[in-house]
Order: sequence, then C-alpha cells, then structure tokens
Amino acid sequence: MNGAESLVRTLVAGGVDTCFANPGTSEMHFVAALDRVDGMRCVLVLFEGIATGAADGYARMAEKPAATLLHLGPGLANGLANLHNATKASSPIVNIVGDHATYHLNYDAPLTSDIEGAAKPFSGWVRTSPNATRVAADGAAAIAAARTAPGQVATLILPADTAWNEGGGPAAVAEVPKRVRVSQDRIKDVAKALHSGEPAMVLLGGLALRQRGLDLAGRICAKTGAKIMAQTFVGRIERGAGRVPVDRLPYPVDQARATLAGLKHLVLVGSRIPVAFFAYPDKPSLMASEDTDFLTLARGEEDALDALEKLADELDAQSVPSQAANLVPPSLAIGAITGASLSQSLGALIPENAIVVDESISTGAGFFAATWNSQPHTWLQNMGGSIGLGMPMATGAAIACPNRPVLNLQADGSAMYAIQSLWTQVREGLNITTVLFNNRSYACLRDELTKVGAQNVGRKALDMLDLSRPDIDFTGLAKSMGVAAARVTTMDDFNIEVARGLATPGPYLVEVQIA
Amino acid sequence: MNGAESLVRTLVAGGVDTCFANPGTSEMHFVAALDRVDGMRCVLVLFEGIATGAADGYARMAEKPAATLLHLGPGLANGLANLHNATKASSPIVNIVGDHATYHLNYDAPLTSDIEGAAKPFSGWVRTSPNATRVAADGAAAIAAARTAPGQVATLILPADTAWNEGGGPAAVAEVPKRVRVSQDRIKDVAKALHSGEPAMVLLGGLALRQRGLDLAGRICAKTGAKIMAQTFVGRIERGAGRVPVDRLPYPVDQARATLAGLKHLVLVGSRIPVAFFAYPDKPSLMASEDTDFLTLARGEEDALDALEKLADELDAQSVPSQAANLVPPSLAIGAITGASLSQSLGALIPENAIVVDESISTGAGFFAATWNSQPHTWLQNMGGSIGLGMPMATGAAIACPNRPVLNLQADGSAMYAIQSLWTQVREGLNITTVLFNNRSYACLRDELTKVGAQNVGRKALDMLDLSRPDIDFTGLAKSMGVAAARVTTMDDFNIEVARGLATPGPYLVEVQIA
Repeated sequence: MNGAESLVRTLVAGGVDTCFANPGTSEMHFVAALDRVDGMRCVLVLFEGIATGAADGYARMAEKPAATLLHLGPGLANGLANLHNATKASSPIVNIVGDHATYHLNYDAPLTSDIEGAAKPFSGWVRTSPNATRVAADGAAAIAAARTAPGQVATLILPADTAWNEGGGPAAVAEVPKRVRVSQDRIKDVAKALHSGEPAMVLLGGLALRQRGLDLAGRICAKTGAKIMAQTFVGRIERGAGRVPVDRLPYPVDQARATLAGLKHLVLVGSRIPVAFFAYPDKPSLMASEDTDFLTLARGEEDALDALEKLADELDAQSVPSQAANLVPPSLAIGAITGASLSQSLGALIPENAIVVDESISTGAGFFAATWNSQPHTWLQNMGGSIGLGMPMATGAAIACPNRPVLNLQADGSAMYAIQSLWTQVREGLNITTVLFNNRSYACLRDELTKVGAQNVGRKALDMLDLSRPDIDFTGLAKSMGVAAARVTTMDDFNIEVARGLATPGPYLVEVQIA
Repeated sequence: MNGAESLVRTLVAGGVDTCFANPGTSEMHFVAALDRVDGMRCVLVLFEGIATGAADGYARMAEKPAATLLHLGPGLANGLANLHNATKASSPIVNIVGDHATYHLNYDAPLTSDIEGAAKPFSGWVRTSPNATRVAADGAAAIAAARTAPGQVATLILPADTAWNEGGGPAAVAEVPKRVRVSQDRIKDVAKALHSGEPAMVLLGGLALRQRGLDLAGRICAKTGAKIMAQTFVGRIERGAGRVPVDRLPYPVDQARATLAGLKHLVLVGSRIPVAFFAYPDKPSLMASEDTDFLTLARGEEDALDALEKLADELDAQSVPSQAANLVPPSLAIGAITGASLSQSLGALIPENAIVVDESISTGAGFFAATWNSQPHTWLQNMGGSIGLGMPMATGAAIACPNRPVLNLQADGSAMYAIQSLWTQVREGLNITTVLFNNRSYACLRDELTKVGAQNVGRKALDMLDLSRPDIDFTGLAKSMGVAAARVTTMDDFNIEVARGLATPGPYLVEVQIA
C-alpha cells in the first residue's frame, strides 16, 4: 500500500469522508487511491477557493472536518482567502496540498514555491510529511489538530514521493481533548454581575448560538434583566420557531456604540470584545464605552454550553419559561422590490430545517431581523470578511446535509469571486436555491467611501464601485453551467420563483433585479 | 495632500500609469485620489487573480510595471497564484495591498491577517509603509525594486491611515541600475566551446527571445553549427516572418532528454538548466545527460543582448546571413477539427503584429510549431505553471498594447479559474479574441495519471479529470458577461469565426468543440 492509499485510509477511518478537490499531477496518486478505498466522497471544484470555502461550510454543518486536495503552492494560494474565513469561523479543515517529490525540490521547477510559508498565515497547524511511511501518521495528526477546539485549519503538505512510495498503512487518530470547562469562580463572577441589577448584556457567539445555548441564555437574561445579543457576524446560529430570537450587534460603528452605550457589564459567551470591522478616521476601534466591564464566561475554545448550564443553575434560571419564538412567519410581500419587501417574503419562504447562507451584504441588511418567527432554520455568515464565500459555503453545507434545503442569499459582486461553484452544485445535484441580488455595484463601498472621509469623489472613483458596464446576466451565466434560473423584477415573481427553486431538485438561481 | 494622493502622484511620475484594482474599504482613499491625479488608468476586475495576472501580461508587453490594488490579506491571497507566475516570468509588478489602519491592527478585526507573511513567498520585495509621510517614498522604492533586473514583484502594504493622513507629496524614483554586462572571459569561454566543433546547443530564454536576440543567436548557430532552441516555456518570444524560428524544448521528459542527448555543451542565454516540470517515478529530474557541460552566457538578470552581440563579434558571426523566417503562412485547414488542422489554421489566421497568449495546454501542443512562418507576432506563455493565467494575461497585454490584436488560445479547464476576466475585457473594450478549446476535461491530467505510474485507475479517479457533467456552455457564459461569442464544430466555421473575432472591435469568444 503506497503512501497515498495509507493516507486516504487514515482519513476515512478518522471520520474525514469528504474531500473537496482540484488536483494536479502531484496529487494523482491520492486521486488514484480513491478507487481503492471505500467511503471517501471526492467533490471536484473548478477553482481552489471553492474547495476551501466548501470545506468551511461543510465543517459548520457536519461538525467535523472535510479534507481539501490542492495543487502545490499556487493551488493553495487560490484557496487561502477562504481558509482565512474558515480560520475566523474556527472551522476544522484538513487542508491537503501536494508538492513536488522531495528530491525534485532542489531543481526549482516552475511550480516550486514556499508552501509552508504561504500556508502559515492562514493555518493553525502546518506540517510537511517527510516520507511515505510517515504520511499516514501525519494525516492522523492533521485530523487531531483540525478538531482541537474550537477547530482550525490544519495544512498537510504531501510531496509526491510520499504518495507514490510504499507506505506504512493507515494510522489511528488520537483522541481529541474535550472542550475545557470553565471554572466555578468564573461562573460566580458572571452571576454576580448579572445579579447586580446594573445594566448588562450577554453577547453570544460560537457554540452559544446553537439551540441549547440560546435557550439557556434566554432564560438567564429573562431572569436577570440583562440584554441578549449575538455578535455582529455569526458563523452559525439556530433561528426561527422554537429558538430564542436574538438580534446581532449592528455593523455600523455609531449604531453599535449606541447599542452598547450605558452597559456596566458585557458578558462574552463564545464571543469576543466587539471592535469595528474597519477603522474610520475620528471613530474609535472599540464599540463598548470605557465604563463597560468585560466578563468572559467562555472563550471560543471552551465549553460554552456547560458554562451556560452552570450559570443558569447558579442564577436559578432553569425554571424560567422558555423565551423561544413561536411560528408566526410574515406574509408574502407583493408589488415592488424593496429591502423591506424582500425581508418579509424571505421570512415567509424559508422552509423548515433550511440552511440559510447569507452573503447578501448591502441588499440584505434587514433580512436576518425578519426571520425570527419563521420556520426553524440555521443561518451561516462569513466570519473573516473576505467576500466570495457564499457560493462555496452553500456548496459545502449542502454536501454535509443532503436532506436540508439550502437557501443562498447572495450579492452580485461577491458572487463573482466564485461563481464557478454553480458547476459543482449541478455535478453533485445539490438542493441549493441561490437568490442573487443584482444591484450592479459594490454598493457597500459607496457607503464606505463616505464613511472613511473621502472628499470630492468623482467619476473615476465611482467607476471602481460600478458593476453595470457591462451588466452581468446572472440568469444566462447560471444556465451556461447547467443551473435552471429565472430573473424577477417584482415581488410577486420573486415569491413564485424562490418557491419554485426550493421545490426543484438540484440547484436553482433566482436573479433579483435591484433598482 | 494625503498619503494616498502622494502615492498615486509618485506612481504616475514614476511611469506606473495603469492600476488593476479590486479595492475595498481600506483602499477607498487611493480610489478617491484617482480623480485628483491625471494620468492613472484604473482597471476594475471582479477577482484579484485577474488583477495580478493582468499586471503580468501588461509588464511583459509594456516592459514596465503596472500597479495592482488589492484588499488586505485575503485580497492579496486571491492574487498570489498569478504573482507566482509573474515571479517565474520575472515580470515587474508594483503590488499594492491595503491594510487596516496601523492602530486598528491591535484589535484583530475579522479581516486582520499576516499580510507580509502571505506576500513573502510570492514577492521579491515586501514593505509595509509606516505612515503617510513615508508612503510616497515607499512607493518610489517599490517601483525601483520592481524594475530591478530581471524584474520582480514588489509588494507595498498600505495601512489605511497612511492613505488618509496628511502626506508629504510625491517622491522621486531612484534610477534603476542597468543590466550587468557579462565579462569578456565568459564570452570567450562560450565562443571556445561553440568553436570546438563538439555537439552544442544554445538554449534561449528571457531577453534573448526578442527579435534582436533571436537574430544574433541565429547567426551564431549558423556560423558554428550549434543547435538553437528556446526553453520549454517562454515568457515572451517574437515569432513569425522576419524572426529566427526556434523550437521549444519538449515538455515530456523522454522527448526532452532525447532532444538534449549527445550534447557536449549547453549554452544558457537568459535560460536555466532544463529540469522536469514534475518528477516522475523512475525518471530523472535533469533533462541533459551527465556528459553535458553547462555554460552560462547570460543569467536572467544580465544583459543577454549585449552578451550575444559580443559573442557574435567574437565568433565573427555578424556577417552571416540572417536566419529569419520568410512570410509563408500555411493555408486554412478545412473539414474536421483535429490538433493538426487547428495548428494549420492558426498559422494562417494570426494577424500581423498580434499578441498570442497560449494557455491551450493539451489541445495546443502543436500550435507553436505551426507559426514560424506566419505574420510576425509575439507569443506569451505561463512561466509558473499555475493554470488560470491566460484570460488575465490577455487582458493585461491588450491594455498595454491597444493597437495590437490579442489572440488568446485558451483551454477550458484553465479558463474557468478566471473566466470573470471577460467582464473587464468588455468594460475596457479590449480587442481580444479568445479561442476556447472545449474538450470537457483536464485532459493533460489523464496523461499525467499514467506517467506518475498510478495503477488500476477507476471511475472515481477519472471523475476528477472530467469536466463534462455538466458540460459548460462557454458561448452562453461569454454572452452573459456581454462578450459576443460563437460555437464551432468544423474547421470551416473555425476559420470564419476566428477571423470574425479578430475583425470585431472589442472582445469575442470562439468556443471550439474538441471531440
């Protein structure tokens, strides 16, 4: 058994049974091993950023890592932006990168580059396997590293001769340590602050945004009068009927500061101290006021659910009535397309158990708020700010959860970073409805141009934010890759087409013309 | 004048008058400065790899750097693969990457990453500007670094406050040292080897592939009986009538070794010791036999043209008749589409003064050989092996040379890495005819799968090389971005449509169905 087969068997035995791949020559032995090993689903993508973004979406929903398979330094490079996003979301990924045979690196062939150097800024763990007898153990170590709480990108570099030489057979994956439970002292400190009657907010992130975390946090806040809120961007949140509804801290600096003003205690549960997404001249980086104390109940890598349980016990909040939402979806909006009407219809249309991927950016500013009493669903967002994640993340989420409909709320500019994802969605028959909001611009940047204080903005600058010369025909683009698609210009057609997309097996794209 | 305007004025005064951009919030002051500074053409792209690949194509044709404008670490990351290609081609690029304001980096906002760390593996020079008064001088240093022979990627990182704070006005660019001339001793050593009558080859790369270099090398080889050849991949070569025709060293290891077998002397002129593109089990990494002596006439950064002049003088070869090709283009092929018929028609169709961008990969294996007596043209190839360069490189070459037709010979798999380039081609009205060879596969990898010795290859492995589920409709895809396009299935229609594309102002795409 060669090194490649030893590695693939290690991955499958270690629970890594999905691989998002764009392989080349150096990875051919890994590819050939797929036919000799049962249990690995290998998903071909047309661009490496789709592999890494799909692995992120997969990890969030499957709660375990997928592998990638990338071709040397440049193939890794193409995947780095979505590894950045995955890193910020603490998504576990076993990121496998082929390299030249070890002895061939001396010759500086065209594809030679410093792969470890390129990987390190976007990986929590990096290792180059030295030979075929070690590659299985290195693969096992990569799985363990990826799964170490809160989850991270583990990059394993695979020189071609470690794949084709005789290997040592599969290796076992070491048990991954459980999340650390927080100390009773910390529970008591937070309980005391919340019990004080002073203005307080519980800010949720990470695992605290799952159904049980929301439930506990809802009871705790109901009991103590503390406000409850989620961080600005959420990697994954359970939402809709049966889940405690929480708003997200606003993105604009002034709104965020107003929301946090006057707080004496800000309790962080799987979240971090809120900071501005970007700096702006004459605006602070920190969103809370100087008078606010930060109390960490649980860091991202700690057991937030256990901490919330104990805090609820400490505060005698377990018996408080559930704060979960009832199923009262809004009615369908009709008439002209506006942000408000889109929010309303989406709240009505989200199907039970849907996965909503949100890269709707400026058009979608109000979407989240409209879904708290919709059908129960899961909401995913970009955690790293590198746009272009939506299409790949929807792809990976659909692979992880074949029985759940995926609704991808997608802005036009960000869609064009990885539009090739549609091809993989057809190939794999994924039930993804992409709702493409076409406003023919990087609309968010028009706002940012003002906020950073740019003066006397003229035509050349505004041209850099304009996607209307030429207009992109997303319906035609989708069809060119085999995706059924329709364009809508009224809410009436929007309602019909989104419903049709959700009811149609395989991918579907609804292009929404935004005025 | 703020830092951004100081930098833009420095760039324009330093001859950098073209910027390929995909900006975000951190770069808004640079964008706003474009309206206050005359002389900077800013070209918007939909994905950062198009910016860096276009800058590579631009540099090869303009013989000076363009700037890029990329959005923080992930924006840089998306551009790295084509920076790899540019590095291997020694293309000068002033690669500008925005970052958070210096004081905001402490807060680890979502888009924070180690930008210098990400840039270093793919840049010859990296600097983060510390403040607005220094940014112009840092920009000037970046230009000088990029232009230092043989040319390199100079990455300048621009924290947002270095752009918006008061700057020091433009800075002057230091004079770039001329290329080093090689010693007379080296000339004499090479002359002695070529004069010996022993089997010898002159292997050309870099500047030696320009018209004057080819002319001199042609006379030298005619005089001495040495073989003449270009390296396997050429960054830029002048070709067709009036230029000395040279073949390129074959890509397959066995063919390359057969071509070099029996040589006593291999003279490197702007080229490097030939090595295998990939390692294969049981094949050597070096292409020349152990008996071959390597003699370097000029390294990539040295003055190869001066060295060839002196060598021709030393060998009394200047008076040898020109070895340049006459204009005898092949006739148009008709009937079924085959590799040979495509080669023949392309040889006939290449217009005078065309720029041919070659990312045709497996379909195009024979194209180059068929063009030696075509109309005079320039041929560009990928030097780094990271596929996906063709579409961006054609875009940049067309921006550099608005009066020259660009013929982009493009494989399907590699096209899909940066197909969004078509949008920029429409926006800028570029005269690019893309000939898209659609064989519905990563065909080169089928061959590589065998060559690396993969055994018992089955369906799952072959699926990873297959682009036919679904078929991509490149004609529809092009039209969705506003590019006129046609699909051809016979050579007769191929001839008509390629000619139509070349005669049509703006971009055009001809999709060639390969059986």
